[in-house]
Amino acid sequence: MSSKPVSVRSLIHGVLLSTGRIEALTDGIFAIAMTLLVLELKVPELPKSIGSAELLHRLGEEMPAFFSFLVSFIYCGLLWILHHLAMHFIRHLKLVLVWLNLLFLMSVAVVPFSCAMLGHFLRNRAAQEIYFANLFLCALLLYLQWVVAQHKGLINQDDPRAVSAMGYQLVIFPLALGAGMGATLFHPMAGFYSMSAVLLALRLWRRQWSRKHPTALAQTPPSS
Amino acid sequence: MSSKPVSVRSLIHGVLLSTGRIEALTDGIFAIAMTLLVLELKVPELPKSIGSAELLHRLGEEMPAFFSFLVSFIYCGLLWILHHLAMHFIRHLKLVLVWLNLLFLMSVAVVPFSCAMLGHFLRNRAAQEIYFANLFLCALLLYLQWVVAQHKGLINQDDPRAVSAMGYQLVIFPLALGAGMGATLFHPMAGFYSMSAVLLALRLWRRQWSRKHPTALAQTPPSS
Amino acid sequence: MSSKPVSVRSLIHGVLLSTGRIEALTDGIFAIAMTLLVLELKVPELPKSIGSAELLHRLGEEMPAFFSFLVSFIYCGLLWILHHLAMHFIRHLKLVLVWLNLLFLMSVAVVPFSCAMLGHFLRNRAAQEIYFANLFLCALLLYLQWVVAQHKGLINQDDPRAVSAMGYQLVIFPLALGAGMGATLFHPMAGFYSMSAVLLALRLWRRQWSRKHPTALAQTPPSS
Amino acid sequence: MSSKPVSVRSLIHGVLLSTGRIEALTDGIFAIAMTLLVLELKVPELPKSIGSAELLHRLGEEMPAFFSFLVSFIYCGLLWILHHLAMHFIRHLKLVLVWLNLLFLMSVAVVPFSCAMLGHFLRNRAAQEIYFANLFLCALLLYLQWVVAQHKGLINQDDPRAVSAMGYQLVIFPLALGAGMGATLFHPMAGFYSMSAVLLALRLWRRQWSRKHPTALAQTPPSS
Repeated sequence: MSSKPVSVRSLIHGVLLSTGRIEALTDGIFAIAMTLLVLELKVPELPKSIGSAELLHRLGEEMPAFFSFLVSFIYCGLLWILHHLAMHFIRHLKLVLVWLNLLFLMSVAVVPFSCAMLGHFLRNRAAQEIYFANLFLCALLLYLQWVVAQHKGLINQDDPRAVSAMGYQLVIFPLALGAGMGATLFHPMAGFYSMSAVLLALRLWRRQWSRKHPTALAQTPPSS
Repeated sequence: MSSKPVSVRSLIHGVLLSTGRIEALTDGIFAIAMTLLVLELKVPELPKSIGSAELLHRLGEEMPAFFSFLVSFIYCGLLWILHHLAMHFIRHLKLVLVWLNLLFLMSVAVVPFSCAMLGHFLRNRAAQEIYFANLFLCALLLYLQWVVAQHKGLINQDDPRAVSAMGYQLVIFPLALGAGMGATLFHPMAGFYSMSAVLLALRLWRRQWSRKHPTALAQTPPSS
Repeated sequence: MSSKPVSVRSLIHGVLLSTGRIEALTDGIFAIAMTLLVLELKVPELPKSIGSAELLHRLGEEMPAFFSFLVSFIYCGLLWILHHLAMHFIRHLKLVLVWLNLLFLMSVAVVPFSCAMLGHFLRNRAAQEIYFANLFLCALLLYLQWVVAQHKGLINQDDPRAVSAMGYQLVIFPLALGAGMGATLFHPMAGFYSMSAVLLALRLWRRQWSRKHPTALAQTPPSS
Repeated sequence: MSSKPVSVRSLIHGVLLSTGRIEALTDGIFAIAMTLLVLELKVPELPKSIGSAELLHRLGEEMPAFFSFLVSFIYCGLLWILHHLAMHFIRHLKLVLVWLNLLFLMSVAVVPFSCAMLGHFLRNRAAQEIYFANLFLCALLLYLQWVVAQHKGLINQDDPRAVSAMGYQLVIFPLALGAGMGATLFHPMAGFYSMSAVLLALRLWRRQWSRKHPTALAQTPPSS
């Protein structure tokens, strides 16, 4: 047993090896954020004896809220899948990753708020800007975790092509959402179109690149 | 190690083998949706010094909300049990199943909303139609997962009779709820009766069929 | 492989052996119900520039809500511990136990509602009656699971004295809360006193009995 | 098999060995409390056709609520990390620890309430006092668990320096938050400054102490 002083930092780095509980907290916060989205769908305040036609008409006016719920739920599902996949490559955690993950979860926890904003003020540029900024922040913090994990050598490099594909999958969302954020500044609905265009372009470019360089990554020998 | 290019799609298919985290997210969303149902039971806004009789009278007026809470909780419990059982047969997941499961969870997350609608507008045909449509969608998406898993060969066929019984168990709910949805179009309360009748008929028919064909499925040899 | 027809019921009994996911759903619903209790503590609607003294005075008026929150949280914690302990003795589950557990979880999910009722109408006999009935139902359904599990031979009888102690621990709460429910019918605050008296009496009686019959249970040979 | 009477207490001590389910409940309550914080961020009640500038102006007025959300989320994340780390050292649980943990979770569950109070009445001394008292209680109950576990000999002493560092990490937060609580009594904003100063001083002192006594703890032989 060495006699050099142990810092709290190094102690904590030594302990936090397993990804089990961080996954439990992540799954919990995702489950709650995704279910809280529904709180924004409100029962219209109408007399109990109202007719069916009028009730449907009033619900029709709430279409922006339903649209916002749908998009937000699917986006959160996508983030959850990406987090799930990325975690498969991480051999163990360091404290900086745990904090980055907590910031990531914080931005996920804010989604029900910005989703409710968009549902209420669908055509308002400020509400769209906040919504895009929130989704961008989620995607950026997820990607940052990957970059830091790679920088610290915590990624399992057994299959370097899979690692490269994973990294690419994580980088396209901040890029596309950043484009959406920028375009919204100029025109209210431009954000959705820009985001979709960038997403499509990046996917096509990747496919093209994979065909041209079939063995590019395969030449890197696996680490183990 | 082969040198052919790896697509993101195939990478993801290779990674998502375990059902552990999808079960954790599912259990989380079910737990929250089932508990959020109670938010619809509201404390009546009355002065604190009100008498017991008057308080009970006011709560009595909220009976539709209690009825709606009860039915929704039990239905969600049933869906959870069916999901739990079906997962036992699935050897591993593919990305399409994860997305179908997310859509299934989305329809489960909407149940507190349509339950609140029914609790507030119990005798309104539009509210009933929305409620039935929501329950139908849940059951349909659960069944779709089973169909896709079977089509992709992801089901463990060790006991083909159990697989057949499981599939039957999953198909009767979309059928019964679809019948309920259809009948509600013609008469407000007909939905509940039609659903119950179809459910009962399908169960009786299955029992009859099992007696007549005791060895029908047993002849299919187990796959392993 | 036998060729007799397999019923859905027997299939399901065969699959539901593990207690893992039912524990996950239970922990989830407890966690949410216990945290939703706090939603009843409401920020008073006062101007932002209000003085400290006045704010504290208004919060003081909300004391019944704080009291109700405290009692409900601790009671839910107790139920969770008892469920946790009881599950240790259960070797495997049958479908009837899963449904009883879902009904138990439903009564737990209603606690935030009856807790809010009590917090708002603390001295109202109807609110107290509802609160006691809710707590009684939780305790009764937990005990019923134990009785059914014992009847079906699902309890691990390795240590019969521990099984007996566990059963005793589970039966005293429905008895005490039933007494509380009954006494509340006669006098608003009598419920709390009756419940406490019965709880104390049963604990003392058990201690007495254990001293007098030190070997009573030890004579029953362990099942394995 | 001994024939001395078994008390419920000793039975329960024997069963509650695993930390798995207490971690599941803890992760669940943290996940929900952290996500409920967002409910305090409210969509402003404005007409749907409002301009972007006015919407941003109104959101700007809600800055205290955003600030309060941010601080509370990060503090809860810190508590979760500390709980996670401390649990690594605990070999098994006793009933007293489970109850202390439930009280700890109760104080965590109250954070969304005191966070909403601070968000609404940011410069009110009573709201600040309640907020600090809540955070102090969380930190104190976490530290108390550690003290009790050490007193009962439940801590894994394989690496005594790590145990000492962990204990130090757990004690500085109640001290710093207690200082914040005290200072708030004298001046509204003094709490934040006092807390930060104490936290910084304690960290610097520890680092100094570690340098001066590099082998102080290493001399204690590991217990196994």
